[in-house]
Order: sequence, then structure tokens, then C-alpha cells
Amino acid sequence: MNWTVQEGHFDSSLVTANGNKYMIGNGYLGYRGTLEEFGKEQLVAVTLAGLYDKAGDQWREPVNAPNGLFTRLTCNGQPLDVLDAELLAHIQELDIRSAIHKRETVYSISEGETLTFTAERFASADNLHLLAGRFTVRCTQDCRVVIDTGIDGEVWDINGPHLFSRLEQLKQNVLVSSAITGELGITVAVAETAVFSFGEQQMDTPGTMRRISFDALAGKTYEWFKYAAVYTGHDVSEPEAEAEMAARAAEQLGYAGLLETHRQLWEERWSRSDVVIEGDDAAQFALRYSIYQLLIIAPSESEKVSIPARGLSGQVYKGAVFWDTEMFMLPFFLHSDPRVARNLMMYRIHTLNGARRKAAEYGFLGAFYAWESQDTGDDACTLFNVNDVFTGRPMRTYFRDKQVHISADVVHGIWQYVQFTGDDSLLADGGAEVIWECARFFYSYAYYNPVKQRYEILDVTGPDEYHERVNNNAFTNALIKETLDIALRTAELLRQKHPSLYQELSEQFSGGPFLTEVKVMLEHLYVPQPDPDSLIIEQFDRYFSLEEVALADLKSRVLNKQEYWGGGNGLATTTTILKQADVVLMLNLFKHSFTKEVKQANWEFYEPRTEHGSSLSPCIYALVAADIGSPDWGYPYFMRTATVDLTGESKQYVGDFISAAHILRRTAGHGWPRCLASRA
Amino acid sequence: MNWTVQEGHFDSSLVTANGNKYMIGNGYLGYRGTLEEFGKEQLVAVTLAGLYDKAGDQWREPVNAPNGLFTRLTCNGQPLDVLDAELLAHIQELDIRSAIHKRETVYSISEGETLTFTAERFASADNLHLLAGRFTVRCTQDCRVVIDTGIDGEVWDINGPHLFSRLEQLKQNVLVSSAITGELGITVAVAETAVFSFGEQQMDTPGTMRRISFDALAGKTYEWFKYAAVYTGHDVSEPEAEAEMAARAAEQLGYAGLLETHRQLWEERWSRSDVVIEGDDAAQFALRYSIYQLLIIAPSESEKVSIPARGLSGQVYKGAVFWDTEMFMLPFFLHSDPRVARNLMMYRIHTLNGARRKAAEYGFLGAFYAWESQDTGDDACTLFNVNDVFTGRPMRTYFRDKQVHISADVVHGIWQYVQFTGDDSLLADGGAEVIWECARFFYSYAYYNPVKQRYEILDVTGPDEYHERVNNNAFTNALIKETLDIALRTAELLRQKHPSLYQELSEQFSGGPFLTEVKVMLEHLYVPQPDPDSLIIEQFDRYFSLEEVALADLKSRVLNKQEYWGGGNGLATTTTILKQADVVLMLNLFKHSFTKEVKQANWEFYEPRTEHGSSLSPCIYALVAADIGSPDWGYPYFMRTATVDLTGESKQYVGDFISAAHILRRTAGHGWPRCLASRA
Repeated sequence: MNWTVQEGHFDSSLVTANGNKYMIGNGYLGYRGTLEEFGKEQLVAVTLAGLYDKAGDQWREPVNAPNGLFTRLTCNGQPLDVLDAELLAHIQELDIRSAIHKRETVYSISEGETLTFTAERFASADNLHLLAGRFTVRCTQDCRVVIDTGIDGEVWDINGPHLFSRLEQLKQNVLVSSAITGELGITVAVAETAVFSFGEQQMDTPGTMRRISFDALAGKTYEWFKYAAVYTGHDVSEPEAEAEMAARAAEQLGYAGLLETHRQLWEERWSRSDVVIEGDDAAQFALRYSIYQLLIIAPSESEKVSIPARGLSGQVYKGAVFWDTEMFMLPFFLHSDPRVARNLMMYRIHTLNGARRKAAEYGFLGAFYAWESQDTGDDACTLFNVNDVFTGRPMRTYFRDKQVHISADVVHGIWQYVQFTGDDSLLADGGAEVIWECARFFYSYAYYNPVKQRYEILDVTGPDEYHERVNNNAFTNALIKETLDIALRTAELLRQKHPSLYQELSEQFSGGPFLTEVKVMLEHLYVPQPDPDSLIIEQFDRYFSLEEVALADLKSRVLNKQEYWGGGNGLATTTTILKQADVVLMLNLFKHSFTKEVKQANWEFYEPRTEHGSSLSPCIYALVAADIGSPDWGYPYFMRTATVDLTGESKQYVGDFISAAHILRRTAGHGWPRCLASRA
Repeated sequence: MNWTVQEGHFDSSLVTANGNKYMIGNGYLGYRGTLEEFGKEQLVAVTLAGLYDKAGDQWREPVNAPNGLFTRLTCNGQPLDVLDAELLAHIQELDIRSAIHKRETVYSISEGETLTFTAERFASADNLHLLAGRFTVRCTQDCRVVIDTGIDGEVWDINGPHLFSRLEQLKQNVLVSSAITGELGITVAVAETAVFSFGEQQMDTPGTMRRISFDALAGKTYEWFKYAAVYTGHDVSEPEAEAEMAARAAEQLGYAGLLETHRQLWEERWSRSDVVIEGDDAAQFALRYSIYQLLIIAPSESEKVSIPARGLSGQVYKGAVFWDTEMFMLPFFLHSDPRVARNLMMYRIHTLNGARRKAAEYGFLGAFYAWESQDTGDDACTLFNVNDVFTGRPMRTYFRDKQVHISADVVHGIWQYVQFTGDDSLLADGGAEVIWECARFFYSYAYYNPVKQRYEILDVTGPDEYHERVNNNAFTNALIKETLDIALRTAELLRQKHPSLYQELSEQFSGGPFLTEVKVMLEHLYVPQPDPDSLIIEQFDRYFSLEEVALADLKSRVLNKQEYWGGGNGLATTTTILKQADVVLMLNLFKHSFTKEVKQANWEFYEPRTEHGSSLSPCIYALVAADIGSPDWGYPYFMRTATVDLTGESKQYVGDFISAAHILRRTAGHGWPRCLASRA
């Protein structure tokens, strides 16, 4: 079976796409799939999880560290660089079984003579601060080779610079580059050491670089190793010293040993995570590639970070954590690595105060989680995050203030963890407080309709973002109902198993709303139900009164390919066309609450009306198709989802999260009929 | 004092504007200020109050009747027409004291020789079906004159044609043109008779025309008269016969007698309606012109029609009745002619079922009055009534479904009438039912906030249409509170004075909501109050969190002069800039509930933020300025309002109602300091 993604030649137009596709990472850092000689123009990035910085009045974004694996060759005075030099052959590949990136490039150095450069790297699964690389040069003709390598401090930023007061030091053959972030003054330190068994090393080059010059003999392979360690002020009190020590320690252990440990950890990881598909190699590979993407961004050792929408692939989407984590990725980790699942939910517990601030900002009680969450839990989402292509003006959207389901998603995630693992320590460690603050938020967000004698949830945006500010979105109401129910169950669980915690909670919320109010609201909360005749669940109040138009006809109205279909005057907003699974997502979440007939009727009704403008959509249609025993309906959606990061084909303006992760929602063990959950 | 509007020469670019400016009318019909020889291209229109027709899938609009006063001259074979012939002099004038339109045109008929044509017309204030005209011709040189006159059946329509199966008859010298409307099959009949004391009359001309040919002698004045009567199937069962009889009767009475009666009625009307301003002739004239506009469109004899936004000046704005009638015009009629005020409110009573249908359409109880009301009270307002200038697409606006204050405006109007006149028969004649159905509508529209323990009014558009779908608009909530209060007072009044009616009402609403529910809601309804420190009343929830931008700066962001500032992505929507008086309108309506300090603080706060994009805005700022003893602040707004129909200067896209009417809100007797109410 194939475990390798490979590029058989160099194509400069794919530099950015391959930066995403060939990524390595270990949850602490992501390293883009760029080549060794690349710099900031080619979007090299060592993106650090959970470290954010705000430059000027631009939006906050994650910080990229200097690149400790930078390496550039010169042969007989001629720079060897894929962008400029003559290439005779070039291969880039990613081994997803062990998370190792490799490249091999054959340069022409004179008529009929070549120099072959190979490089291999990995972000250690053992020591998350460590990057290691092995390099070789081999030529067919004697020549003079110069290697420039060290730490490239010219960092790519969207909204930077973020690193100031840079200090570049040489400490007994270890290069150390350190700087502090502009907003919070956090130190970011990178230390590098390199081991050469040949040539003459010169260390007085500009910046943190070393230059090795030697006369290469034809037919001989020259090999060297690099070890780079990254530490920040979030990790330790002395990041520079720690990074230096880590680089030295790595050198001591040696590349082979480090790689072997790394490989073993990945093997163990796959043994927990693999899903085997029989008889469909393309599906098997795409699924494994998607799992790989999740594994390289999973916070295995930190409960202070979660998984951003674009993983650790750079600064796009502000490095922000969305609802995807709980609703699309969590189930995978529950099945494969519950410690990661626990870390993800602990991140929400640690950011509770940010959610409280957001609720208070809008005049509500409790916790209203950030639509785009960073380190503090304050919302990184702006009120204007799409540009109107017709006027160039920022467009008011209601992602930040109306997608209230985010707080229910968090509660759903915590409860999933507790239910699945049986580990209710998460509740005692802050989970119960989060659940109750979210329930209290919804209590204050809800309104009572005195004529219909029910609580309603008004003015929200559901998963289908093309329809903003709707009333009684079925998905949102169902999740809020679940939140209230979970809150009451949690209280009961605490009362029985952690009475002192229950006592604390009771005192904390003694001013109400607490048990009494939430019980009443739960009893009287309106959740849209299937129509008795058609079985269709109306997505929100008056959805059925919107214009019915075929998706193809709506597309024919498009004037500008980049125009946003939602927002104030979007093409879809006054029609029944939806961006992504909404009612159908609810049917998947609460699969045991609906009959097959209801699921099928709604699948058939909503599918032709769904644009799938988000990568969060086809996966859900695939899962529900599988659930109702119609795998043939689901297969194209599964493949579309599983291959999205391989093909790079997704809508650019809003929906293109790092979508590979999405397909895995409950794949294992939840009925994808062509998949067999495996703990091989 | 001047009572005449005059045009001293002919300017073809002013044909449309003067059609509005020189209008005559009598509440049954409006006759545009066009010239006798004009046809549909020059927007001649005899617009009938309360008769609507829908052609195809276009919007419904009022029906224009054929023009019974059409007259065109020829001299020595040369057509005399202001548009083509050589004019030596031309005067068009409107006598607003007697509502008489005049023109005098001197044509060159050969070198140094002239023909002078005069025409005078009025829409009888005595017999509302009657139009009458006096015409003269006088030449300086003998010549051959041909007069073509009769009924011009080529009717101008925006969305027509509306008249079908036209029948043109000659009945003993009376021309009768009749037709039926397409949608409802209502007959529209026009009869014309003309009296000539000269020439030879030929009646075999095409259509309903007569041709009079004669040799005119130099220096002699030739005079003739025309009488045209209009009846529809809404008025009588035999409109053709009735029109024919009316034309004959008018001819019998003769022009001088008809004119004298008309003049007397207008004199009597002014004696009730005039407002004298001392020492400011321009203001005096502008105010009288505005009063004139109200008098020619007031439904003095019908309780089945009200005053459309554009009066009877044609089909613009669908001939629809908006909230202006109750909130801006009614007070004038209360002071000057309470019978008209009663008719206006009876119109709302007659259209209650349309309002009930609209409430039911949206799932509410009671009566939700039409934003744009026609004959049935069903809403003529579409969900898309502004075009996006950047894409050419219709833009979703929330006039129809969210300006719920319209039902409170109706209640306010009824109660104003009852309070002002002491005539509570209006309540017995259906007013009480309207009031209660509106109160029940609001009860079902409101939501209860369980945390704040109050009823709130969510998701509305207030008078400031640039901010759609807001919560707790101060104006709307205050008016709804008044509605609930009025409903309870009405019930009490009926209980005491009309116990059987009270019994009926109690039975009708025995299923609730009725007294109990409305009392509770009234006690707990939230109405935004002045801030204790700043005294400012927030226009709606979170208005203060919008972008603060100077009006001039906002204007500098305009990309297209025609772009709409409201709607989905409008420039003003995310800022504190408002279209028109909103909080300040509330301060004017409830002037006795607020201190001078509160009024002044809010005037000063909101005025710089107000675009005055509607003619309903400056008048209110003028009134509140007067109320707080700052007439100098108010004067420019008063003049801007009073002259709007004279100058024709107002925004074209939405706000340009027939605004002359607006300034008169409570002018008489309510404190405009430079005005002295007069019943001379």
C-alpha cells in the first residue's frame, strides 16, 4: 500500500499549494512543505501553536519562528536553487506513515555533469521542540561546493513583523537566534547545530549562518545533519538556554536514533488511528492522508492549545480555532487518542474567561465562546470579514455575534468526551463550570413567546452561513436543548460523585439562573420537528417561504466569481440554497433521535439545495447517506472530502479550512460502510 | 399677499416637475399640471382615488381615467403646441386660493402676427366627479382655426394598460368613453360636453373627439367651455349614464355658476385651514402651498380611501397609503376638517381584514397593517423595493415585514381623533376592534426576556429605515406601549358607554389575549429611557456601539450617487447615521412625557447624525426645536420642508413622498412660534 505523496518534478506555480500539501508537524509546531533553500517569499513557515501576536491595528495571528533548517548550496560559484538553476530531476515526497519530508534534486553543473542534493527532515514526535534533518551531496565531477546553512531569521508574516530585538549568538558551535514578540513580549528562541564530517566551516557569515566550503570529489557522497530546537517564553522561563541545550542533546543522540524513536512513535500512533478500507486504494490513501493531517496538528502534550482551522500551516485564518474542532475532529481523537481529545476540551476550559467577556460584551450571562478563538478565548472574529467585490467595502457579517451554537458545540464536545471515555474528571477540572456557563448564556439569550408558550432562540446564524440572523434554526435549537439537558445531568453527576464541587457550583450560581430556570426552559424550548406529512424539518422559521431556485440557476446569476453568496445582499440569502449541511448535520449529531425515513427525506430535500461551499458539508452528507444505508449516495461526497487537501480544490473566500480533518467525524466505528475501524 | 404659483415661460425640461407642482384635485381625482394639448408622453393623468388595477405580474397601481379636457389648436393648418410651435409668451399659473389652473400662450402665426390661447380649469369642490374648463382664442390677423377637443383615451400608465373593452359613444352631443379595468372589471366612464358659440362642429373624428373649424377674425375673442364628468363602478351602478347626466347637468348650470360655487367652497375651506405667518412672506406662501396640497387630496366625501404618499399625482409609489397619513397629516385635518380626519381613520377600519391577513401570513395574531396600503388593506409593499446600483439586482429590504409600528400608528391616529374631537362613535364604528386587533398583534409579536423580566420588541425597523431589523427601537416600543394603553382605555370606555359593544368585544377575544394579558404586557414592556447622565435615549439596542462617522465623511464614501444607504450592505447601516427623525419623532409625539432638557439633549445628539434622507425628517426637527424654545434651530428645517414641492428638491430613490403635507403635523395650535393659528 502506498503511504507516500510525491511530486515528480518541480513546478514553481505549486510552491504555495505544496507548502500545505507536504507539511510536517507535531502539534507544537508546523513546518510547511517548502524546500530547504526557500525563504519568506516562498512562504516558509515554522508556525507555533498557541503563540499569537498583534502588529499595529491588524488582526492577531500566530507567530512563525525563524527557520533552523535553512540550507542553500553553491557549486563552482553557481547557486543551486530550484527556482533558478537548471534541474535535471526533482522529487519531493512526504512519507505519511512516519511524517518525514524528503526531496532529491539533480542539478546540472556543467555539460553532462550533475550534482545531486537530498534532504530529509522531520518534526520530532518525541521531543516536540525539535526539528532534525539529514542532507547529502553527490556529484559526477569534482567541484567546489559551498553550503550556507543556519537559522533564517527572515520570517514570512501576513501581518508582521512580530519578532523584535533579535539577538543572534554563537555559543560553542550552536547558533542561537532569539527575539521577543511585539504585543506580549514573549521570547521565541531557535537554536541550531550542524554536524559535518568534511569541509571547512566558517562562522563569521552574516546573521545566524554557517558556511562550509569543500572540494567535492566525483562519486563521493557527502552527508551532514542539522538539529534545530524551538522554545518560547510560553514553554519555559529560559527559552534560549533550553533551545541551546535541546540542540546539543539532539546532536548527542544523533540523527539515526532520533529518527528511530520518531518512527516508532508514529507506528504506535498509526496502530491506534488507522482506518482500513478494502478494495479501494484511492479512498484508502485519501483517508490516510487526512488522518495524517490530523495527527501532525493534534496537541498531544498541551491543554492550552487546540486545532486551528488551517492547522499549523501558517497564519491564514488567524490561527484561530473554530467549531470544527469539537464538531468534526473530536470524534476521531476520542477513538484514536483520548488524551488529545481531553487536551482539546481543556483548551475550552482554559479560555472560559474570554467566553465570559464576550457574553458580557453583548449583555448576556454566562459564556459565549469565540467564533475564532486564540490564546485568551477573546474573539478574533471581526464584524466585517468578507469584502464586497462590487464596492471593495468590508461587508458586515454575523459570524461573530450570531453563531451562538459555538457555546453548545463546546458543551457537546465536553459531554462527548465524558460519555465516550467515562472520565468525568474533565467535569471536575472545569468542564462542569463551562457547561453551566454555556447553559446560562443560552438562558439569557432565549426569549419566551407568550402566545405559543415556549422558549425560542431568535436571531442566530446556523451552520448555513448564507442565511444570517434567522429565528429558531433547527440545528441551533436542538444543540441548545442538548446543552440544557447536559447541564442538568452534569449537576446531578456532581451532586452524586463530587458533592463539594456541586456545592461550589450551587453557590456560584445561587443568584440564578440555575437548576430551576434551566429545567423550565428545557421543558418549554421549541425545537423544529419533522413535518408530519413531508417529514422535512424546516431549517429555520420561514425558510420554506424563500425563493426556490435550482443551484445551477443561482450560479447563472453570479456576476463575479469571487462574490460572496451570503452577507447583506448575497445571491443565496433570499433563496433556499444553503452553504452547507445544517438540518442534515443535526440529523447526524442526533442520529438516534430520528427515523431513517426522516433522515432520508431531509437528505433528499436539502441535498439539491446545498452548495457545499464549505468543506464541512460533503462529509456530513456522506455520513448520513451511510447511516441510512445508501452508501452510493455518500461515496462521491466522501471522496470529495477526503481528497480536498490533496487536490487543493476548495472555495477560497471563506470555506477553505484545513478540511482534511473534517471527514473523520465519527468515521471510525460509526458506520461508514466501506471503512472498517482497525486497531491493527 | 400672493396666492399664485406662476411659470413665466415654457421650459420643456420642467414638464414632469410642473405636472406635480401645478396639480389640481378634489380628493376624488387629481389632475396633473399639464397643458391642454399634452398627451400620455407628457404624463397627463386624471388619477382616481382608491381605484387600483394590476396588469400582469407587475405591481398594482391606481387607475388613470381618460382626459376629458384634452384640447389642441391648429391655425392655418399649423399645429399650435408649446412643444413645437413658436412661442412669443407663455404663462402657467395655479391659484391656490381657489384651486384653479390657468395658462396663456401667445403663438406666432405669421410675421408679427399672433394667436393667444387661454385655458382655465378646476376640479369641482362641489361635484367631485366634475372637471370644467373655459378656453379662449384671440388673433391679431384673420386666420383659419381648428380646435380638436374631446376625451383623450390614450392614458399614461406606469404598469398599464388598465382599461379594456373601451366603448366610445356620442349621445346627443355628449361624448362618452367607458372601459373596464383588467383585474377587477370595474367600469371607468368619462363623459364630456362642450359649448361653442361659433364655428362648425364635426363629430365624425376618430375616437371621442370633436373638431370645430372657423375663420377667426382679428381682434375678436372666441370663448368656449368644456365639462367632463368621471364615474366608476365603485361610485354608482351605472357609471356611463351617471357621467353623461353629470356632464349635461354641468352644462345646464354653466361655467360661471359652477366656478362661483367652487370658489365659495374653497373660501370656506381656507377659512378653516389657513395659518397666518406674520413678517415672512416666503414662509407664508410656502406654508399655504403645502396646505393647498393637502386640501386637494383630502378625501372629503369618502371613508373608503385615504391619502397616498404621492397624493393623486399619478401612479408613482403605487398610489399606496403609508404611515404618513396618521402620523404627519392627520393633525392638520383634526384642526381644520375633522370629517376628513374621520374618513381617513374609517379607511383603516375598512381595511382591517387586509391587516388581519397580513398578520396571519407571518404567524401573528390580530392586525398587522400594510406598509403600503391600497383598496383592500393587503400589503402592496414588496420584499425587494430598492435596486442595488452595483449589481442591478433587487435588494431585500425590511419595509414590509419589520416596520411593525404601522399598526401602532393606526391606533395612535384613531385615538388622536377620539381625543381631539370627543367623537367616540369612531370606536363604535369599528375603531375599537382595530385598536384591539393591533394590541393583540403586538402581544403576539412581543417576546418576554426571562432574565430582564420584561417584554421586548425584537427585530423591527423603525422610522430610520437605514437600520433594519433592530431590537427595542425606542420609537416603536413607545408607540406599542401607547397602543396597549389605548386598548385598555378603549375597553373601559366601551364598558361604560357602549356595554353591548364591550360585550361583543369580550366574546370575540374571549380566547385571549385580552385584558389580562395586555395589562401584564403593558406593565412589563421595556421602553428605552434617557440615560441618567447624558439624557440621550438610545435609538435601539446597541446603536451606541455602531461606528461614529461624520455625515460629510460618510458622504465621501459614496461611490454612486444613486446607491441606497440602507439595505443589506448600505453605507449607513453599520454607522450611527440615520435616515430620518426617529428618537426625535418620539419626543415630538410624546412631548408631554419628556423634559425640555431631554428633548434638547437628544435633538443636539441626533441632528448631526441625521441625513434627512426623507422629507419626513426636517419637519420633525423643526417642530421639536420650536417645542424647546429654539425657533432659530428649527427655521431652516421648516423652510426646507415647506418648499419641498415648490422646488422639487428631494431625494429620488425612496424618500420623496408628496412631502408638502408633512410639515403640517400639529402646526396649528401646537407651538410653531412664527405661526399663528387662524380661523380668519
